[in-house]
Amino acid sequence: MATSNQPLIHRLEGELARIPLVDSHSHVPGTDPTAHTLDDLLGYHYYTELAHSCGMPKDCLARDHDPQARCREILGWLGHMKNTAQYNWFVHICHEFLGFQGKHPTVADADALWQAARHTFGRPDWEKELWCRTNLACIFLTNDFDDPLTGFNTSRYIPCLRTDDLVFHLHDPLVRARLARATGLEPKSAGHLRQALSRLFEHFLRNNARACAISLPPGFTPGAVSAADLDRALASPVPGCPDLARGVFWMLAECCQDHGLPFDLMIGVNRKVYAGGVFQGQDLFDRRTSLVQYAALFNAFPGVTFPVSVLDGAQNQELASHAWIFPNVIAHGHWWYANVPSIIERDLRDRLNAVPSVKLVGYYSDAYKLEFVLPKYAMYRAILARILANDFVAPGVLTETEAVAVASQLLEGNSRRIFRLPASGPGPG
Amino acid sequence: MATSNQPLIHRLEGELARIPLVDSHSHVPGTDPTAHTLDDLLGYHYYTELAHSCGMPKDCLARDHDPQARCREILGWLGHMKNTAQYNWFVHICHEFLGFQGKHPTVADADALWQAARHTFGRPDWEKELWCRTNLACIFLTNDFDDPLTGFNTSRYIPCLRTDDLVFHLHDPLVRARLARATGLEPKSAGHLRQALSRLFEHFLRNNARACAISLPPGFTPGAVSAADLDRALASPVPGCPDLARGVFWMLAECCQDHGLPFDLMIGVNRKVYAGGVFQGQDLFDRRTSLVQYAALFNAFPGVTFPVSVLDGAQNQELASHAWIFPNVIAHGHWWYANVPSIIERDLRDRLNAVPSVKLVGYYSDAYKLEFVLPKYAMYRAILARILANDFVAPGVLTETEAVAVASQLLEGNSRRIFRLPASGPGPG
Amino acid sequence: MATSNQPLIHRLEGELARIPLVDSHSHVPGTDPTAHTLDDLLGYHYYTELAHSCGMPKDCLARDHDPQARCREILGWLGHMKNTAQYNWFVHICHEFLGFQGKHPTVADADALWQAARHTFGRPDWEKELWCRTNLACIFLTNDFDDPLTGFNTSRYIPCLRTDDLVFHLHDPLVRARLARATGLEPKSAGHLRQALSRLFEHFLRNNARACAISLPPGFTPGAVSAADLDRALASPVPGCPDLARGVFWMLAECCQDHGLPFDLMIGVNRKVYAGGVFQGQDLFDRRTSLVQYAALFNAFPGVTFPVSVLDGAQNQELASHAWIFPNVIAHGHWWYANVPSIIERDLRDRLNAVPSVKLVGYYSDAYKLEFVLPKYAMYRAILARILANDFVAPGVLTETEAVAVASQLLEGNSRRIFRLPASGPGPG
Repeated sequence: MATSNQPLIHRLEGELARIPLVDSHSHVPGTDPTAHTLDDLLGYHYYTELAHSCGMPKDCLARDHDPQARCREILGWLGHMKNTAQYNWFVHICHEFLGFQGKHPTVADADALWQAARHTFGRPDWEKELWCRTNLACIFLTNDFDDPLTGFNTSRYIPCLRTDDLVFHLHDPLVRARLARATGLEPKSAGHLRQALSRLFEHFLRNNARACAISLPPGFTPGAVSAADLDRALASPVPGCPDLARGVFWMLAECCQDHGLPFDLMIGVNRKVYAGGVFQGQDLFDRRTSLVQYAALFNAFPGVTFPVSVLDGAQNQELASHAWIFPNVIAHGHWWYANVPSIIERDLRDRLNAVPSVKLVGYYSDAYKLEFVLPKYAMYRAILARILANDFVAPGVLTETEAVAVASQLLEGNSRRIFRLPASGPGPG
Repeated sequence: MATSNQPLIHRLEGELARIPLVDSHSHVPGTDPTAHTLDDLLGYHYYTELAHSCGMPKDCLARDHDPQARCREILGWLGHMKNTAQYNWFVHICHEFLGFQGKHPTVADADALWQAARHTFGRPDWEKELWCRTNLACIFLTNDFDDPLTGFNTSRYIPCLRTDDLVFHLHDPLVRARLARATGLEPKSAGHLRQALSRLFEHFLRNNARACAISLPPGFTPGAVSAADLDRALASPVPGCPDLARGVFWMLAECCQDHGLPFDLMIGVNRKVYAGGVFQGQDLFDRRTSLVQYAALFNAFPGVTFPVSVLDGAQNQELASHAWIFPNVIAHGHWWYANVPSIIERDLRDRLNAVPSVKLVGYYSDAYKLEFVLPKYAMYRAILARILANDFVAPGVLTETEAVAVASQLLEGNSRRIFRLPASGPGPG
Repeated sequence: MATSNQPLIHRLEGELARIPLVDSHSHVPGTDPTAHTLDDLLGYHYYTELAHSCGMPKDCLARDHDPQARCREILGWLGHMKNTAQYNWFVHICHEFLGFQGKHPTVADADALWQAARHTFGRPDWEKELWCRTNLACIFLTNDFDDPLTGFNTSRYIPCLRTDDLVFHLHDPLVRARLARATGLEPKSAGHLRQALSRLFEHFLRNNARACAISLPPGFTPGAVSAADLDRALASPVPGCPDLARGVFWMLAECCQDHGLPFDLMIGVNRKVYAGGVFQGQDLFDRRTSLVQYAALFNAFPGVTFPVSVLDGAQNQELASHAWIFPNVIAHGHWWYANVPSIIERDLRDRLNAVPSVKLVGYYSDAYKLEFVLPKYAMYRAILARILANDFVAPGVLTETEAVAVASQLLEGNSRRIFRLPASGPGPG
């Protein structure tokens, strides 16, 4: 990587910033997408879990704790993580949206930032302004299977059917009750379940859903389950029953096939590993897992596109190689613990070196509030621009125009094709 | 990595290009080593599988499909993979051998490339010219155990006894019949098998073979099998019988010891993972594997040299550490899915940082036609030159002359020593 | 990484060299910390094992072999590993301490180096001089559980209770006898064992011990063992009994909690993999292991700090992510096969990108003689300076002063806090 490419990198960053973003995975609530207070930013689990990991007691995270005091508390811990990418997303937001001029926001800035946040986020046109400044074309949500999907513009906030509850918690009477309420059907047998899932898919598709999605533990290996076995599992459902989880999962893949929906697989998370952790700061992973566990699935459903994310960067070559061989496997973004500049750089270089650019969806924000889309994508674009400059344009493999075209596929085009979005629009503004 | 080292890198690339190449693993057919048509290039599985992965139906790959039309079809898909190293090998060939002047070969160039290929590859001295331009000293083949090894110059095209069929398919009557035909012996017992294998080794050694080789699945763990157990396994052979595979494998290692032949282990491939894939485009890997599985083998055969390749770059540190500790383990090239610039760069740096240079065989082409040796080695040499410049010469660890000497070991010298080739020659032209 | 940052990197290296070093893990003997002869340097297992791996027979390593002849022999093999980091530590020592002026020490230099070593290491103030030149504040030892801990200054040479023998060899009558001798107690039951361990901890704490430490095989998964099961295991101890190893380990964690001692976990080593290897050159690893195996431990002992080292760089993201989530997990140094510049660079970048700097103990020497602390830390500081310059200061994430502060945490401050050392001193000189 070479400094003399700096002007080229700079030019590419400028070009890349002009590409509208299709953000193919987030947790932004469609009905309440933007932050209202500084607490909506600093309450992001990246800050609460890192502060806790540095020693912050969890008391201030109680629901009834004064939010402004909580921000002061968390700001006091940020000084311990000034080196992290996660911290830099927050600094970027402070500079970009909150008028912060200093280098590092500290406790001393807490009240000013609080006021600035109230002011900025309280502007009547804030959501619209944010879309424009982020250059966002559309953003995918994470919707519970029983989400009514009302109250937001589904051509900007794209519904996505999240199915973890169905696959891993259908033994839970509450989940079964929710399913019954949402579909009018009790999942008492494989046949009933299939009908219920069909109704969910129909509801989601009527509301412009563009993907089914799930996060999966490292030990999960999909496979077909016979109707009889699934009947049995549904009749006396117990937690952790493999027939239940595998049976429901396989049926979801069948529904994706029937309804032409891509199935996002986010592979590798162990839930609640750190029992004493903060909300959403308890999950980790286990590197003893392989994408080969999904071979039966990829073979059985050639008509379903599987955008696949992995949690462990050391699994990236498996992902690249599977996307290289399987027509229906797409390398999808840089997930969670692997969403860190040095890991993204390594994984993205390996993907760009080996996998046709049409098989790569570059990035998604995974954001909980729209404000985080901008700094996260800025981080990604800087890495992408550097790799394109150093590995492709400088050595003469691609022209600058071709490099921008590749970036455009990764940031927008491939998502539009794979998720069957309109070729352009609605776009910002 | 620093631009200011560019002149140094350039000088090193020039020096490295002068080193004759010992290509220690390929699939080039000794009796038909060069391409005849453009189809021999674009039919390489890297292009067919990547085009298929991008969406190309397999129809055009049928044996009876018009080869020129097939080239047109594949060329039409190459635009989707302009970012990949695999594509760049082809572009390099077009520029170097086919007089192509453009930046990217497209469907519009198909007929001109077809004619250029016929013309170039039809030259009576093409094979000789190619050896010279590639600066090739010799190239290892992949020979079936029943290959007659006739019809080619075995001091240039070095026979290599490939043993996958023996280890993993000896349950197959066809394989047993081939073995019986080749050796005059039915492998009905451990004793008979040993005699049969000895005859194979003698045949291969008489014909200048320099290695025994095998590719192995991630789950394979070598170990001694008693004669009684192997007898039983041979008497009623069933697919996947561990005693059979392990017994034959162990006996091959004994033969290598008896006959002084290195045993190339290519570790990690799962065959036919993508059942619907193109020919040779169905195999993948599983990262849940470790070189420690081979400890018993490495300990039991101190007199056998094991050049080891791994399929997953994330296993590279295991390979480097085993080559660091075991006198008979050699880190061997960058195999298949790991044969990609960014992965080679990482793996090679780690090897050069930790493993004595005498324990490294730098690269092999894995080519199916001689034309691919040049672009693949050019890619490797560029990476090697950059690492030697940035990590060794620029910081003053090695002089430029010493760095070239290290490169010479990796490209030629170590292979000559390990595979007991003459110290020089036959070399090109 | 960019050349134009070279002046910045150079400045940072100067700043970093001024930070006193807390070397949190070594095998330096407190009573005999420095080398006396060249043999004490070249006898380091890195050289004997690499020379053996290159082909050196083990004869010269016999105890009664003439040490000067041994040095000649080993020096003769070093030429094969001029590319390695391990070799460069030795060259650094030759230049820095032995007045060697050449580029590469060869057999021809053997006698001169031998004499120079005798002269230098024989100086009456050599130990003191070495502390100063190394800028060492204190160094942790590796003490057997029955070490009397006398004969050295425990505020410089910090005792550390090494517990491998207790956890993995308590079936061995010799180890039980040593424990009985050291504590006056036979470990016949869980109760007795607890008392015995308490006495060990008290003895170590009286002598300024600052850590309990252990190396662990890849397959080990800690968990609580009932007193009854541990009683049974202690009553009829057999090698490899899981209840014994897990029971003792868990009790050690309880002792760490009771006595406020951090528990260093060095995870991943398989012992005696290469049976024919040189002393300390027989161990390797198995990448089929995960830090998730330690979840129960990390959860059960929130009051115990666990500085964790991993042997396989490909496990580094697991380590970074666990340190990111668990308050009591610290990413600790770069161990053994991962203590190589290119691997350190990758792992350190990933840690600095994702983990708060307070959760990182940057480096330890793992040295067997004090002379190696300097070259090993010089290697680490060069990498750290380059990463801080390229990834943090140049892009404006941290100021130069802040970057030095981060380095200071990694080299000194975090160790002082985590291991409860005085805020400064004793320091060199």
